[in-house]
Amino acid sequence: MAYDVAALEKLVEQFRKFPAVGRKTAQRMAFHVLDLTDEEAQAFADAILESHAKIHHCKLCHNLTENELCPICESPNRDHSTVCVVEDPRDVMAMERPRDYAGVYHVLHGVISPMNGVGPDQLTIKSLVERVAGGEVKEVIMATNPTIEGDTTAMYISKLVKPFGVKVTRLAYGIPVGADIEYADDVTLMRALEGRSEL
Amino acid sequence: MAYDVAALEKLVEQFRKFPAVGRKTAQRMAFHVLDLTDEEAQAFADAILESHAKIHHCKLCHNLTENELCPICESPNRDHSTVCVVEDPRDVMAMERPRDYAGVYHVLHGVISPMNGVGPDQLTIKSLVERVAGGEVKEVIMATNPTIEGDTTAMYISKLVKPFGVKVTRLAYGIPVGADIEYADDVTLMRALEGRSEL
Repeated sequence: MAYDVAALEKLVEQFRKFPAVGRKTAQRMAFHVLDLTDEEAQAFADAILESHAKIHHCKLCHNLTENELCPICESPNRDHSTVCVVEDPRDVMAMERPRDYAGVYHVLHGVISPMNGVGPDQLTIKSLVERVAGGEVKEVIMATNPTIEGDTTAMYISKLVKPFGVKVTRLAYGIPVGADIEYADDVTLMRALEGRSEL
Repeated sequence: MAYDVAALEKLVEQFRKFPAVGRKTAQRMAFHVLDLTDEEAQAFADAILESHAKIHHCKLCHNLTENELCPICESPNRDHSTVCVVEDPRDVMAMERPRDYAGVYHVLHGVISPMNGVGPDQLTIKSLVERVAGGEVKEVIMATNPTIEGDTTAMYISKLVKPFGVKVTRLAYGIPVGADIEYADDVTLMRALEGRSEL
């Protein structure tokens, strides 16, 4: 049911554009905004505008940052000869979680997807090739998602950077740790079998 | 994991304050905001500020409106002698959905809840009593939620308005239509039995 209050309706419509937010949730969110004090609403609006004003892409790896270079690219403690290629900034965050990876990143900001009209030129592939051509990079780890588009993108990039003599690897496919083999899907099982290692 | 991007972290924190939004969802929402164009982000921020600038309470029933009186209070097609008392504006919306109720409303903006420090003075009870004292109201339908606080509030209001000679009623409790008696909770079953009607 629509509200007779235009300003509220407008706010609900804004929230409906969020991923996985239906009308009911959007209404709940709009009411949350109404329940804020005027100062809180102002702070919320400011945070939105500030995120757009301040955040841009790292000149080198295209991850999000407020500076010219992101902290990972700037860090002397990271191995700048290993570049992990991911689809978007959220993937960097996921990869950083285990605190295990010491290399740097390259954020594509998407995948090659002819269906959605995304070609290699809309991604940061050219900039990656330039980094590799620079000579410092020894290994490129493809960490695009295990989807048709992710795989295609990984293959495409692999062909572009291999001529520079770098090692190109891919994250392992397999049974997720803690998961039940019984419930693993066929493709994952197939990949797990292919990628089996000696005990 | 925290972002090293302060403006993003700030935005995530804003979304975490929303009801039923955890860190992961807040992140997803913040990234949605980042993905907006600058114009869209501006429109979103404007919608938030506009909702605070334009929306206020109807002078008569305290429902949300952009005008002095809400469309329901202003309508000559509604029965202004029947007032349905609800906890908040969302309840008005719910009651309006079946398009069955022809009376008007009174929005309390909460319930009496000593636990949360909400007394009768923080609600719009005084204004309801004034409406009833005005003489036009013949029936007050209590539609507060079937909780201890909702029931307490209904009882409290009932005692205040009955002396004016108005009829005070309560929404029926019972088995929800379409629900299975087997799975109904004990209190609902008890109330359904108490409220049984002749066939």
